[in-house]
Amino acid sequence: MPKKYVDLETLKYILYDIHKLEDLLSRERFQEHDLESLDLFIDSVKEFSDRELFPYFKEMDETPAYHKDGTVIVHKQVQKVMHQSGEMGIIAASFDYKDGGLQIPFTALQAAVYVMDAANNHLPGYPSLTQGAAELILEFGNEILKETYVPNMLAGIWGGTMCLTEPQAGSSLSDIVTKATPTKEGYFKISGQKIFISGGDHQFAENIVHLVLARIEGAPKGTKGISLFVVPKNRLKEDGTLEYNDVMTVADFQKMGQRGYCTTHLGFGDSDDCRGWLVGEEHKGLAQMFLMMNGARIAVGRGAAAISMAAYRASLQYANERPQGRKLRSTGKKNPSEKQSLIIEHPDVRRMLLLQKSIVEGSLSLVFLASKYHDIVTTATSKEEKEKYHLLLEMIIPIVKTYPSEAGAESVDNGLQVLGGYGFCADFSLQQYYRDIRISSLYEGTTGIQSQDLLGRKVPMQNGKALELLVSEITKTILAASKDEDLKQYAIILGDKLKQSQKVLSHLMPFAMKGNYERYLADANLFMEYMSIVVLGWLWLEMAVDAKKELTNTNRKYSEIFYESKIHTMKFYFKYEVPKTNSLVESLMNDETLTIKKDKEHII
Amino acid sequence: MPKKYVDLETLKYILYDIHKLEDLLSRERFQEHDLESLDLFIDSVKEFSDRELFPYFKEMDETPAYHKDGTVIVHKQVQKVMHQSGEMGIIAASFDYKDGGLQIPFTALQAAVYVMDAANNHLPGYPSLTQGAAELILEFGNEILKETYVPNMLAGIWGGTMCLTEPQAGSSLSDIVTKATPTKEGYFKISGQKIFISGGDHQFAENIVHLVLARIEGAPKGTKGISLFVVPKNRLKEDGTLEYNDVMTVADFQKMGQRGYCTTHLGFGDSDDCRGWLVGEEHKGLAQMFLMMNGARIAVGRGAAAISMAAYRASLQYANERPQGRKLRSTGKKNPSEKQSLIIEHPDVRRMLLLQKSIVEGSLSLVFLASKYHDIVTTATSKEEKEKYHLLLEMIIPIVKTYPSEAGAESVDNGLQVLGGYGFCADFSLQQYYRDIRISSLYEGTTGIQSQDLLGRKVPMQNGKALELLVSEITKTILAASKDEDLKQYAIILGDKLKQSQKVLSHLMPFAMKGNYERYLADANLFMEYMSIVVLGWLWLEMAVDAKKELTNTNRKYSEIFYESKIHTMKFYFKYEVPKTNSLVESLMNDETLTIKKDKEHII
Repeated sequence: MPKKYVDLETLKYILYDIHKLEDLLSRERFQEHDLESLDLFIDSVKEFSDRELFPYFKEMDETPAYHKDGTVIVHKQVQKVMHQSGEMGIIAASFDYKDGGLQIPFTALQAAVYVMDAANNHLPGYPSLTQGAAELILEFGNEILKETYVPNMLAGIWGGTMCLTEPQAGSSLSDIVTKATPTKEGYFKISGQKIFISGGDHQFAENIVHLVLARIEGAPKGTKGISLFVVPKNRLKEDGTLEYNDVMTVADFQKMGQRGYCTTHLGFGDSDDCRGWLVGEEHKGLAQMFLMMNGARIAVGRGAAAISMAAYRASLQYANERPQGRKLRSTGKKNPSEKQSLIIEHPDVRRMLLLQKSIVEGSLSLVFLASKYHDIVTTATSKEEKEKYHLLLEMIIPIVKTYPSEAGAESVDNGLQVLGGYGFCADFSLQQYYRDIRISSLYEGTTGIQSQDLLGRKVPMQNGKALELLVSEITKTILAASKDEDLKQYAIILGDKLKQSQKVLSHLMPFAMKGNYERYLADANLFMEYMSIVVLGWLWLEMAVDAKKELTNTNRKYSEIFYESKIHTMKFYFKYEVPKTNSLVESLMNDETLTIKKDKEHII
Repeated sequence: MPKKYVDLETLKYILYDIHKLEDLLSRERFQEHDLESLDLFIDSVKEFSDRELFPYFKEMDETPAYHKDGTVIVHKQVQKVMHQSGEMGIIAASFDYKDGGLQIPFTALQAAVYVMDAANNHLPGYPSLTQGAAELILEFGNEILKETYVPNMLAGIWGGTMCLTEPQAGSSLSDIVTKATPTKEGYFKISGQKIFISGGDHQFAENIVHLVLARIEGAPKGTKGISLFVVPKNRLKEDGTLEYNDVMTVADFQKMGQRGYCTTHLGFGDSDDCRGWLVGEEHKGLAQMFLMMNGARIAVGRGAAAISMAAYRASLQYANERPQGRKLRSTGKKNPSEKQSLIIEHPDVRRMLLLQKSIVEGSLSLVFLASKYHDIVTTATSKEEKEKYHLLLEMIIPIVKTYPSEAGAESVDNGLQVLGGYGFCADFSLQQYYRDIRISSLYEGTTGIQSQDLLGRKVPMQNGKALELLVSEITKTILAASKDEDLKQYAIILGDKLKQSQKVLSHLMPFAMKGNYERYLADANLFMEYMSIVVLGWLWLEMAVDAKKELTNTNRKYSEIFYESKIHTMKFYFKYEVPKTNSLVESLMNDETLTIKKDKEHII
């Protein structure tokens, strides 16, 4: 196994020096924390991950979760990690003190869970989903629901899930048919099927609290008739004991990757005895769920970013240890009497490693950026601040979900390639990372859905204000970089890319104005790719500006080579990745419509 | 399981109408064949694949080959397919009549084996490698070797392998250390370790004939001291019985994909009783092996092209059956009362399907192109013809190995995405294709190695003559397309791309001239990608020219929509794929060197 699954130095650099976690700590909510205590928190999670997560990474893949006798059998570490996540306060970390939380900044928590994801991405979903479900109850539930469910969830004793998808309704939530029938006792009777439920059941869970989207009888059609319910696997009787709530584990899904994180098919109310309690208002379920969706989408991006980090470290270690081939001499030949080179010395291997580094560290910066916006929104002291960062967050959400997932998969693919034939073999971890990360482009809205969200909802938001705000943030970095002789050229390129994006939008917008939304959105995926590269180019330039400054600082925190490697990787990103915007623009500006169905069938 | 794993109509169209298999049949070697008989041969292999390969595709993944008690246990279909491949003449198909072959054109054989690959890529390697090993013996071995080994190999009774890689020598064959010690009896004593040996052993093989690269004691260092040996697992005694030849199956490699195709680690001469017989001349082993390497590299490209075809058909079927979501109306909204659309109606799904189609059918055309060149080389009647097609073949080999592997993986990735969450689940075949195809970029020289071959050896070959010939072939199609009003614009684009490639080379060549080969080759992978897109653009334009012509032909073979779909896909390729050359050129012309190791360590 590789020795190091995460570059903690870079993580802390990006968290503290680039995204300036300290600035958040002046906010009232976080005033009892200081950098030192948060740093200790991250270190303790790293130590926990070293001990309880990373050693089981391979084993959990080889002995996947499976369905047996009406439950799902998962690896024993699920129990350990759930309980310890409760004990260490990881589940409750970002919640209010009054709810049993620690009021730790969301951003710091993301840093900690990123380390867990990198150590073993099969495990953090169990506590994370529990946290998400608890958050929904705390945000919208009444006091009884809070008291009944939240304490055991935060302690890691009860699990939690989100139940959206149904067999006939995947991305199309308006087609949900799970039924909620009111009773005079106040609860609802729930009946329906939910699929793809992560962490939906396992042998260690005393109870699992499902947050279920369902339709109250007589509700309007479509997404406006969906309500949110708490539906525990076992309901609490008045005497404090649990009784079975008619939530059946029908089956599980065997997956290509992330096999230790169980995915279940649940049946509610097969014996007409499944009770659910409404959370918040009737028919507002989807909006409520989507308020939490931002966190869930950041979490998917974070997980993907972390997997690509672990894969990068593994391939880097291999490249530093494996001798193979020799340097090409000026004759164009190699000298077989020479000692073999380490493969890290071959330009093509360096290219693959630098590509990984640029995606991996760029993705990490993106995750912290989105998390920081999230923290600012929840702690904003003025309406203007709240509004501004809300829009910035909305703009960045589809990108933080998508880029680490898509580019991350490419990054892991390159990591696998670094190992040659061994990369394909079960003895090495790269093939597992390759399989594991692939789910990220599907989870919580596919790349297609995210791209429609970006171009179809976020760009037009408030007449383009969200995009305008993002452009103005990017422009700050461009201005800072312009003042440096070496960085100026990259600032100019990034500025051009911003202008080009405006041209693309001017070209596409008229389709939307004319009501031809299908055409407007047909190439949304390409626009997503374009904007992702621009945002990553920005984040790398931002890092280079800081690194450049620190190189003149005699009292710098990290080594000279550390900062130089950041500048080098920025240059790599601008040489090899940023030019991809050119071809994307050409495709986006090309008016031949080839993907919209016309009269003729079978053209495909 | 999907109903249709291959589009036989398109296969035959590309084989007969685009690459004009019939033209080959006028050659003396093939004169006893006609299109009808070859068509029947392909159909019989399809029928065989339907019956004996496709039904076991999932099962072979779920019950992979494994090492036990000194041998490898493989799925029972291995025996069936080996024997039937012998009986049906698939192994011997392209060999001389005098050697027991059928003198079927290599191109027609590739079409047949492509169908087998698409049906179940875990199986065709067994007969294919046997054929390759037999070919080496027939080409370079003496009469005794031929008589002793070839008949049983062609009959599918004995298997065959190629043994190149050693633990310390992967891509770097000059570091091979397997030893061959001459004896006065004429044979050599072999000792050493070989890894990654496909089909290296299994419980059904009465015998396996290994073609082994080894170094005769005292041989020169490097690749010039490598010789080729026949080393059977069991050697033939004078009485005609077999005795164990001290070839031990040390272990197997468990892989992420293609798990039914065993990969072994062999130990030769552990008990100092392993005999090998020299094939051809001493120290010429690598050159001899590489003569066969062209066929092996076409085979890898063919296999990858076939996997992407099967994945495309599976995702297409799903898209045609799965309802989900609705059309966006001119209000920008969807109407939830409307019936759900089939997902094939969504532009983004159509984009993913058309991307697949363009890669899948383009790759197939590329495989037939390379195969046709191969056939012409082996049957050339003049020195000029032989020389010309030899150069064209050399030029196209690294591309036919690489493009179907790399773009094919992207194609399958898109196929998986079409299925949403189900694509990641074991119940659907997409995740298996996704894992299976990934080995193609590693087999028989990684993409890095192929790219160095293309830019480092093939482009400079005979002062650029090979490239010149390829450009002149492409230009013929450009001229033909220019005469058509609708196709003219694409012809112009392709012409520009050719010119651009010359500019790139003019920019890079001086580095080579100055002896800075490391710099010259540093971005060889990008050049590979560039040239691949140009070649595929050519092949699509060629198909469009033919389709356009046939649309005016009242007596046409296929439906109107069939031809229109080819033109449509060409347009798709030119809108979405060809523009990628722009960013590649920008990176290739950028003189910042970032991947060549300088003094500083740990920049990565």
